[in-house]
Amino acid sequence: MTEGSWLQEVRSLIDARLASYFAGEREQAAALSPEGVALVDAIATLTMRGGKRLRPALLVAAFRAVTDDAPLDDAIEAGAALELLQSYLLIHDDWMDHDEERRGGPSVHAALREANGQDAHLGASLAVLAGNLASAHAWELLTRIGGPEPRLRDVIDVFLAIHREVVLGQQLDLLATGDVSLMQRLKTGSYTVRGPLALGAALAGASQAQREALDAFGAPLGEAFQLRDDLLGTFGDPAVTGKPVGSDLRAAKRTALILAAEELASPAELERIRAVLGRADVTEGELAGVTELLSACGARVSVESRVNALLAEAKASLEGAPLAPLGVAMLVALADRLAIRDR
Amino acid sequence: MTEGSWLQEVRSLIDARLASYFAGEREQAAALSPEGVALVDAIATLTMRGGKRLRPALLVAAFRAVTDDAPLDDAIEAGAALELLQSYLLIHDDWMDHDEERRGGPSVHAALREANGQDAHLGASLAVLAGNLASAHAWELLTRIGGPEPRLRDVIDVFLAIHREVVLGQQLDLLATGDVSLMQRLKTGSYTVRGPLALGAALAGASQAQREALDAFGAPLGEAFQLRDDLLGTFGDPAVTGKPVGSDLRAAKRTALILAAEELASPAELERIRAVLGRADVTEGELAGVTELLSACGARVSVESRVNALLAEAKASLEGAPLAPLGVAMLVALADRLAIRDR
Repeated sequence: MTEGSWLQEVRSLIDARLASYFAGEREQAAALSPEGVALVDAIATLTMRGGKRLRPALLVAAFRAVTDDAPLDDAIEAGAALELLQSYLLIHDDWMDHDEERRGGPSVHAALREANGQDAHLGASLAVLAGNLASAHAWELLTRIGGPEPRLRDVIDVFLAIHREVVLGQQLDLLATGDVSLMQRLKTGSYTVRGPLALGAALAGASQAQREALDAFGAPLGEAFQLRDDLLGTFGDPAVTGKPVGSDLRAAKRTALILAAEELASPAELERIRAVLGRADVTEGELAGVTELLSACGARVSVESRVNALLAEAKASLEGAPLAPLGVAMLVALADRLAIRDR
Repeated sequence: MTEGSWLQEVRSLIDARLASYFAGEREQAAALSPEGVALVDAIATLTMRGGKRLRPALLVAAFRAVTDDAPLDDAIEAGAALELLQSYLLIHDDWMDHDEERRGGPSVHAALREANGQDAHLGASLAVLAGNLASAHAWELLTRIGGPEPRLRDVIDVFLAIHREVVLGQQLDLLATGDVSLMQRLKTGSYTVRGPLALGAALAGASQAQREALDAFGAPLGEAFQLRDDLLGTFGDPAVTGKPVGSDLRAAKRTALILAAEELASPAELERIRAVLGRADVTEGELAGVTELLSACGARVSVESRVNALLAEAKASLEGAPLAPLGVAMLVALADRLAIRDR
């Protein structure tokens, strides 16, 4: 099995499961209320429009690293739950962050505002409801897994821990105070990398040693993923990332790049960078100048090196770990995709 | 055991469980993020400030109607989960409905706006996060119940069904179109009466016949509860209900009273009523006039009679039902409290 083939297979299985789930949900909603289908459709449109399904892939890889022969059905069910958790979080966050686009189309609050006479509060309220429904969808898929009872409880506990962390991370992001790396660890690291790995481990009935091995792999990889996000947010190709040029600079985000520049740039350079951060009327030329500066002062190379070191650390942690070879190969392939990517 | 004593005992057990749960959550949040405690506190303040705990009482009564000797621990755990479900829904709905007060204090979005420099969007965003966290709290308590695995799944399914109905009901309320009684059945009937009864039944491992008996009791009682709400929204004492005079009239809600008036009032009376509905600048005198008209045309008596008929139907459904006498007595006592109340 080549890397491409299993990843493609996981994507197909997840997409098929989500499509059949939404078909059932649409019927259930229609039976209860004539308007209900519109909420399910809002969730389905966002969920099916995109996403690399990397969280389910991590879950499946962790599952296979613990057991190399159990059927994948439950892992696919829980993987689909992760995609719905993400839809719920994206729907709410996009409204909180005033993001009008997502995955190449309108964000849900924008679409529901448009569909309801441009009433912004009604669109936002319906989007929050759609997010709430997506959250329940995630719970429903997660608790559909079969097997012995202690495992279901274990899976639920992992899911609750992921949710708690991501909510507290989003709170820190909204308050825009304090510890940026804590915010990123809570908001992104947990539900993007460590959480899916922990879910796969719980589903496969992993031993304590196996869980620790997967977490030792996931912690540096989650950080590498976030740092790559920071690099793409400034140096990425907007046509590929889907984010406007300099979006992190415009939003004055305290990214790893800015933190590195604060250590590496001269006082004069820092002043030029700070003069641009967060200004609504900043020009493309000014943005390009600061982007150039972030390279010239060494901040870009510094963050790139850190990504590579974290990626190497993640891979090294797998050597001698009490995990099955097939799953380990899948984890290594995913690590490269998460840390080295252009979108 | 007198009626007052068991109800008081359920309240005490629920309050104690909630207090200890919040203490644990506060610690967990503090360990993850310095700001996290503020979100838990927002939920705890609203949850502990009030509420009659009637949903947990219904759950306990249904549990006792199925089994008259099993320990109450799991019913209390699930009852506390229902209170957190309610907190989550109230937090989100109050923002959607622009309600600034709840249970004699500021609603959560108002309190969080106040605590964050009067930034309305930030207050609303943090309130949505607090609601999301409360929703996860509800899931956590619900899935802490012990016992055999099929029961946990059954309880989860009931909880998911309640949640689906209440979200679709709130959607209908926001859209303010179409079927008022469907909206009320979904939004209030399900999670206030039928849902708690179904949860108690699932927890106690009820037979199909017992579940049907409890639902035959809950369906008319849920409607009676909602009609009583409509009566209190117009004729209730604001000092007791906590709602301003004529709040339903000001909001132009299509309550059971208005529907009854449409059948009973003369064309001239109806014109006077419609001239006031939903007007922001309506005077106290005009409101008093319409309130008087809703009595004079017979709408009030008509709705009161319907409440009494539904209450009688609910009680009659228990005769000969395959339920334990102690639980049945508790259900009857609660029916009176839900249908005949002044707040």
